[in-house]
Amino acid sequence: MRIVVVGGVAAGMSAASRARRHDPGAQVTVFERGSEVSYGACGLPYVIGGDVERFEDLIARTPAQLRGRGIGVRLRHEVTGVDAAARTVTVQGRAAGRTVTEPYDRLLIATGVRAVRPEWAQTDLGGVHVLRDLPDGRAIQASLRGARRACIVGGGNIGLEMAEALRSRGLEVTLLEQAPEVAGRMLDREYQRRVRAEVERGGVEVRCGTAVEGLGSRGGRVTEVQTGSGPLRADVVIVAVGVQPNTELAQAAGAALGQTGAVAVNARQETRVEGVYAAGDNTESTHRVTRRKVHLPLGLTANRMGRVAGVNMAGGDARFPGVVGTAIFKTFGLGVARSGLTQAEAGELGLDALSVDVESTDHAGYYKDAAPIHVRLTAERASGRLLGVQLVGQPGSVKRVDVVAALLHRRGHAQDLFELDLAYAPPFSGVWDVLLVAADRLGQALRQARSQP
Amino acid sequence: MRIVVVGGVAAGMSAASRARRHDPGAQVTVFERGSEVSYGACGLPYVIGGDVERFEDLIARTPAQLRGRGIGVRLRHEVTGVDAAARTVTVQGRAAGRTVTEPYDRLLIATGVRAVRPEWAQTDLGGVHVLRDLPDGRAIQASLRGARRACIVGGGNIGLEMAEALRSRGLEVTLLEQAPEVAGRMLDREYQRRVRAEVERGGVEVRCGTAVEGLGSRGGRVTEVQTGSGPLRADVVIVAVGVQPNTELAQAAGAALGQTGAVAVNARQETRVEGVYAAGDNTESTHRVTRRKVHLPLGLTANRMGRVAGVNMAGGDARFPGVVGTAIFKTFGLGVARSGLTQAEAGELGLDALSVDVESTDHAGYYKDAAPIHVRLTAERASGRLLGVQLVGQPGSVKRVDVVAALLHRRGHAQDLFELDLAYAPPFSGVWDVLLVAADRLGQALRQARSQP
Repeated sequence: MRIVVVGGVAAGMSAASRARRHDPGAQVTVFERGSEVSYGACGLPYVIGGDVERFEDLIARTPAQLRGRGIGVRLRHEVTGVDAAARTVTVQGRAAGRTVTEPYDRLLIATGVRAVRPEWAQTDLGGVHVLRDLPDGRAIQASLRGARRACIVGGGNIGLEMAEALRSRGLEVTLLEQAPEVAGRMLDREYQRRVRAEVERGGVEVRCGTAVEGLGSRGGRVTEVQTGSGPLRADVVIVAVGVQPNTELAQAAGAALGQTGAVAVNARQETRVEGVYAAGDNTESTHRVTRRKVHLPLGLTANRMGRVAGVNMAGGDARFPGVVGTAIFKTFGLGVARSGLTQAEAGELGLDALSVDVESTDHAGYYKDAAPIHVRLTAERASGRLLGVQLVGQPGSVKRVDVVAALLHRRGHAQDLFELDLAYAPPFSGVWDVLLVAADRLGQALRQARSQP
Repeated sequence: MRIVVVGGVAAGMSAASRARRHDPGAQVTVFERGSEVSYGACGLPYVIGGDVERFEDLIARTPAQLRGRGIGVRLRHEVTGVDAAARTVTVQGRAAGRTVTEPYDRLLIATGVRAVRPEWAQTDLGGVHVLRDLPDGRAIQASLRGARRACIVGGGNIGLEMAEALRSRGLEVTLLEQAPEVAGRMLDREYQRRVRAEVERGGVEVRCGTAVEGLGSRGGRVTEVQTGSGPLRADVVIVAVGVQPNTELAQAAGAALGQTGAVAVNARQETRVEGVYAAGDNTESTHRVTRRKVHLPLGLTANRMGRVAGVNMAGGDARFPGVVGTAIFKTFGLGVARSGLTQAEAGELGLDALSVDVESTDHAGYYKDAAPIHVRLTAERASGRLLGVQLVGQPGSVKRVDVVAALLHRRGHAQDLFELDLAYAPPFSGVWDVLLVAADRLGQALRQARSQP
């Protein structure tokens, strides 16, 4: 069994490892166009900010270690074509410039996403960066030497993580966001505001509703960002306005894209082309709450898809269970988490949703370092079925999002959450954990809503 | 509707509040034999240790505030008898010494537990204490003045919390435990050892397998603890060897005790006596994993039972959903949590259980302050149904026990846990949260066990 994997980061490496484990006789080759494989891209902002010492710390396994596990790793090799009928791929070695044809029995396309570059950012100017991979991280690191002013364009989680990182490095930081608030995709408006307030407390100037119109430069380096409300001086510009799936190779192989624009697969991570699998950030998945296809490129999802693909390519039978839209990030002293749908997302999908907001303390109010935690819990009005949760609070307090994620997986109701025997001692929560308080309030609101026609 | 509540701490006050909220016309009277109501007894060790400034900080609502909510509170009034046929209670005012008879339509007996005092501890000697209520806490506080050496008898969660508290106060602390290890009821042996090691690192001398035989004293104050392995000097002795339910009043009313020795109730918190309810630490509950009756006197359970009783006494219909045996505590730098059953408990119940142990880091290994977390996950061998989890790690990391609790509620399997879309970013967990790693390993172990007849 010859298994070829295109892309050696999250999904690709998971697939390769799993395939070998499932079938130790399989010949597994990973082609990676970059110079590194098997690293945690989610850690990049923390190296830049200094919480992690070196970029190399993000590398889970070196090519040599992987070869020791029987996985062939070919760095700086880009797969440029697929002949699905002949079951071959065309591979271009970057160093040698040679193009070779490699046969496969099973092919995984794990080409990930690329950062979106608006027209004004399609430039070779020094100091203008996106953040997707290790080379991006190193380039930003190099760019920061001597830099005083940074401008981050985009207030999603990468932008917000980078805002903290660059403040940690002592830069003046301005964050520009075209939408009315930051964290727009993750949270409802009031929770977005709490995040912005925290970022502002951290010393970042946040300008929402601000579109970038162009860049100014001198000597090949960026010097300013031009916006609708005037120019802004900047030595470094981080463009973090979103990502788009790298689907070209999958399309060349004959795979279909889904309505999300990412590669369409079944639960076995199979594309519609026999022998061709897709997994990771380039691939769409199924949302268990809405039962719709979604494109949510996140680390766990990518690894899980890769694992499923690896087992199946090696002759096993694994299924991707779907996602419930869980996400989490930290910016300055705030943890932000969500799962399921926001009230706004539920509305866009035509669901009649009802939300309650609870503010409490993350552990017993009398115990040291108790801090506020805000929870929004959302359910379907008619049925009481949970739709989603949003939390902002101390970083250590928001991982409890996972409890709601567990219920969303099983289409649980507000009452199911309220009945949970959650852990209590004063250093850990209130007697009634804030999730129980929220579930109780939501139950009341649902009953009231039902009694008022 | 005249509702009488006996006992004004967790279950009693929850019931009183709920009853009033459910039926604002109800006449609700709480008789409390102590001088305070509505306080968080779980916080007592933290006041003694200094993490909470004053005992008064533990009080959620004063009698005056409760009266403002329409709840009559009679402090220092002990209910000494019940005539269930006549629906009256006999109440003795401690101050006046007067005995009166009070009628009720619904009666809640929320008399809690008392600390077990072995024969050697049944003494009025100064410096010998249990820790159940605010007066106990204040007495310990007073006893600590000038004290240098403390001996804690009992290595359960109270003993372990007090060990930390007394070390924080600068005392030399010895902890004696009759069993072979500390935390015996909560954890399997290897996890008990980790807890002991942490307590020892905190400077506590731990002597397991050591029984107390008596106390030595001078001038009415304890001076030493006599053990099988010799005497031990001590200015203060904390007796924390367990609790037993205060069932006398319930029995006097005609209520039955269950096989656990605590008061037997149905899911509405009704005893077998018409109009008489029981709730809180004196009452048994149903374990959802084993479907057996258990007596697990814990804060959330008590509050929840009280709430259910309150709604029902006021004419509503609420049901106690049962527990899954979740518990958590902190000692020194360690958080300890469990839910469901340990391997040992499963064995005692005749269940064929299989456990896996995972050691990982609580967040991404490369991110600052990543610390070890140990997880034991247990399932039923034949079915794969989850039976329980044990976690020890940094305090901030073990509240994820709640995710497993959520699955235990719904009789989830190892595979259900593995499929969860849990939150990941480097400051919060590994890409695969340690619970997912454990679920994966458990799934493998279960498959192996099944393939080997």
